[in-house]
Amino acid sequence: MSQPGLWPRFISLEGGEGVGKSTNLAAMAELLRATGRELVVTREPGGTPLAEDIRQLLLAPRNEAVAADAELLLLFAARAQHWQQVILPALRRGAWVLCDRFVDATYAYQGAGRGLDTALIDRLAELVLQGQGPALTLLLDVDVATGLARAQQRAALDRFEQEQLSFFERVRAAYLVRAQAEPERIRRIDASQPLAQVQADVAAVMAAYIEMCE
Amino acid sequence: MSQPGLWPRFISLEGGEGVGKSTNLAAMAELLRATGRELVVTREPGGTPLAEDIRQLLLAPRNEAVAADAELLLLFAARAQHWQQVILPALRRGAWVLCDRFVDATYAYQGAGRGLDTALIDRLAELVLQGQGPALTLLLDVDVATGLARAQQRAALDRFEQEQLSFFERVRAAYLVRAQAEPERIRRIDASQPLAQVQADVAAVMAAYIEMCE
Ligand SMILES: Nc1ncnc2c1ncn2[C@@H]1O[C@H](COP(=O)(O)OP(=O)(O)OP(=O)(O)O)[C@@H](O)[C@H]1O
Ligand SMILES: Nc1ncnc2c1ncn2[C@@H]1O[C@H](COP(=O)(O)OP(=O)(O)OP(=O)(O)O)[C@@H](O)[C@H]1O
Ligand SMILES: [Mg+2]
Ligand SMILES: [Mg+2]
Repeated sequence: MSQPGLWPRFISLEGGEGVGKSTNLAAMAELLRATGRELVVTREPGGTPLAEDIRQLLLAPRNEAVAADAELLLLFAARAQHWQQVILPALRRGAWVLCDRFVDATYAYQGAGRGLDTALIDRLAELVLQGQGPALTLLLDVDVATGLARAQQRAALDRFEQEQLSFFERVRAAYLVRAQAEPERIRRIDASQPLAQVQADVAAVMAAYIEMCE
Repeated sequence: MSQPGLWPRFISLEGGEGVGKSTNLAAMAELLRATGRELVVTREPGGTPLAEDIRQLLLAPRNEAVAADAELLLLFAARAQHWQQVILPALRRGAWVLCDRFVDATYAYQGAGRGLDTALIDRLAELVLQGQGPALTLLLDVDVATGLARAQQRAALDRFEQEQLSFFERVRAAYLVRAQAEPERIRRIDASQPLAQVQADVAAVMAAYIEMCE
């Protein structure tokens, strides 16, 4: 948990489409607020006015094919802005930061999903974050069909949600490989369970983590 | 002129604010069209719908401070898209490409102007362009005060045009250093002269170059 560069009060929430990230965020925020410390709840891509503008460019369906390296650079441009303007200042003043997706998503979506070289993502992450990141990541994991069915109950599909099933299978597999490689940081939550049980599992991990940190 | 990776039919036009790039573009295009080949006239940042959207994000004045690395990554995201969707396909089918600003501008504005590490720009350029670029670059050069006075006759100032004089002095100096380092590729034009004389100098360089290429 105290790997150098990882910020104990920085927590990210990860997983594919419709796994329940946004749904579980509110209860996680409640637990963190109960510590009495400042809490910043944010998301990627986005989190500042400029980064949210970049999010719109990334998510909007387009007639134009988007080059994979252009997509990757846009994501890291948004992350650089978010990191320097919002996340790092908050961590430095002792706040909790709870973020809906962070750098693991880039390895899963642009690395495994789009097939971009992982070493390239490493280099951009090093440039923008200099080895820093969340000390705790909750990975909500459910089979692709279930997640997509949940996501489709909502609004029109964005540019990522329009991808093929095989894309999302690669994304899910990459998340699971990352969780196996970093079991201390990344905790897998079984998101196939009924929502009440998912929320109970999330709360248990969070409560133990907060107790350890504070 | 035949440095590996440089495309003989790719020509860029560079220089600081208000030096006359856009003004000289039309006459250059005429000379290239007279060869009978297809000509693509484009600009950076921009040149595709997505890249033009990124241009808007880059140029719009904002209340939010823009992180220097976010600006750099946005520029290369736009360039990656422009390169893969427009410039490279055009060059591959034998067309001329005439571009208002290209990678030299990033070294001048983000490198010298913003103070970002040149090695970092090198790495991003390598990632996006793999050593490819224009075989001819016309650098319109005029003292900063004259260029800014010309630019100010036009519309409201964009985010770059609002910079301090010292920023533009660094930009101009960096362009001149690049021209000295690559005299074969980068031809300096004295843009302090009356427009008719600037256009005559531009036309002379272009006519000799086209004759050599075709
Ligand atoms: N465990 C669950 N069981 C059944 N439905 C769920 C469960 N968790 C979330 N949902 C529902 O699935 C839908 C998607 O959830 P949510 O928006 O939280 O997912 P998300 O991971 O944030 O998706 P995205 O990646 O698109 O942001 C919502 O309608 C939500 O109510
Ligand atoms: N040699 C010249 N002498 C006097 N005025 C000039 C000369 N060249 C261009 N101008 C005028 O200066 C103004 C700026 O020119 P232009 O828009 O072509 O510059 P630019 O290099 O494209 O600027 P920007 O970097 O902002 O795109 C225009 O009003 C143009 O008519
Ligand atoms: Mg969500
Ligand atoms: Mg212009």
